[in-house]
Amino acid sequence: MATEHHGSYAPGYKPSHIAHHEWRTAENSAAYLLPHITKRVQEKADIRLLDVGAGPGTISAGFAKYLPNGRVVATDISDKVLDRAREHAAAAGVHNIDFRNASVYELPFADASFDVVHASQVLCHLDRPEQALAEMVRVTKPGGVVGVRESDLRTVACWPDIKEVKDAFDLIADAMEQNGGSGMGGRKLIPWALAAGVPRDAITMTYGTWCFSEPADRKVWASAMIARFKGGEIRERAVRTGLASEEEMEAMVRGLERWIDSEDASMGLLHGELLINVT
Amino acid sequence: MATEHHGSYAPGYKPSHIAHHEWRTAENSAAYLLPHITKRVQEKADIRLLDVGAGPGTISAGFAKYLPNGRVVATDISDKVLDRAREHAAAAGVHNIDFRNASVYELPFADASFDVVHASQVLCHLDRPEQALAEMVRVTKPGGVVGVRESDLRTVACWPDIKEVKDAFDLIADAMEQNGGSGMGGRKLIPWALAAGVPRDAITMTYGTWCFSEPADRKVWASAMIARFKGGEIRERAVRTGLASEEEMEAMVRGLERWIDSEDASMGLLHGELLINVT
Repeated sequence: MATEHHGSYAPGYKPSHIAHHEWRTAENSAAYLLPHITKRVQEKADIRLLDVGAGPGTISAGFAKYLPNGRVVATDISDKVLDRAREHAAAAGVHNIDFRNASVYELPFADASFDVVHASQVLCHLDRPEQALAEMVRVTKPGGVVGVRESDLRTVACWPDIKEVKDAFDLIADAMEQNGGSGMGGRKLIPWALAAGVPRDAITMTYGTWCFSEPADRKVWASAMIARFKGGEIRERAVRTGLASEEEMEAMVRGLERWIDSEDASMGLLHGELLINVT
Repeated sequence: MATEHHGSYAPGYKPSHIAHHEWRTAENSAAYLLPHITKRVQEKADIRLLDVGAGPGTISAGFAKYLPNGRVVATDISDKVLDRAREHAAAAGVHNIDFRNASVYELPFADASFDVVHASQVLCHLDRPEQALAEMVRVTKPGGVVGVRESDLRTVACWPDIKEVKDAFDLIADAMEQNGGSGMGGRKLIPWALAAGVPRDAITMTYGTWCFSEPADRKVWASAMIARFKGGEIRERAVRTGLASEEEMEAMVRGLERWIDSEDASMGLLHGELLINVT
């Protein structure tokens, strides 16, 4: 299903990028959705949750723990990433989860199949996010909820004020936009939902954040960024398409290294969070 | 106490600005601190909480409800604003609160007087934020906590992409910086705390957000902005000092009006949140 027509994934699937997404958990990346899951589990234990574009599946496996008598289906367009997600779930002792290769544009499920449908940092990579959202709504049961979270890479607050760290975020946003996606998906969630045919009064929007400031968190997060900027898909794409030179990429790596080592460092970023009450 | 030496308050005290701060509550503006208050109340019912630069006192009165057997002291450098805060507390039925005119640089309290010391959007207006923070730490008891929240006006995510709304935030940040403060206080909390002599391992930093997207919220928030831009201290200062012309201020007002009326509108902003564990 991973054809150009169905949308390619600009960041690519190199280990450095997959690792970058593996620190995500249901708690640190979908806290806005958890009360809505818990509420439904209390009403009906065997709910079904679909996690679209699940990547390495750390969030999906986290969701599965909230529905011990329910079931999670996690999709992605890369078999390689799905294999890694299966391994993660098995290692985490999570068994109420199924994996499936599927495009968000053509979900292989009947209308009204799921109680909860979720995507994290998926729509920002697509050139037709409103179609993806309409498809997610289609497979959601009446009374169910769709939850989407997208970062907004143009809202970075970085300290110390290292220009090359800001450049690194801008480069990632530029690459996403070059590929037909959006580096500012966070702020576009409401217009995307309206374009998908969702009534305004079925929409709730909030913003969440990422914040890295503790020494260990700084190292984990920025080291994964550094690996991507040294040898990931983003490096190849940036140099190949002229978004940045090898020298500029090296300067960004040095900026990130300096940031890790700064005692007073912190980094914050807005993430738009969308809830759709499906009726 | 409101001398130039002790720091003037750039936004001024016009009703439009005070109203702008009155929608703030303990829940929507100090959620990061509430668990730390509750924990201390469970250990000792009669805790003392100091709210520095409390403005119209809506957050202070909110705190007081979390410590029914404790007491809040709310300070500000404007008697006029303190009168308004007294009225708000009385109207809200809050009686375990005292008000006092005091500068954050010279708090009229003995060392180790309070269990919790709080400031919201105060340090960003000061030219010596690290001295204010050191003074707040001084009056905190060992085992107590200092909580500070500051917005970061350079992280605005606005949709629709109305240039004049972004300009309005930049103008407020510029005016704060012109007065010796900082429009990016949110990201500077750790460096300020380190400069105040706080050890790094006593510091925890997170980011919170503001998000306005529901029609009613959009109107309340942006109408107060519009009132300030039409006839508040910010208008006088901007025109007088050349930060913006009358025409530019009018364009910002029209931009905010257009934003209120946009069905797909949302606005988000990062707020740095600092906790200091005092030992």
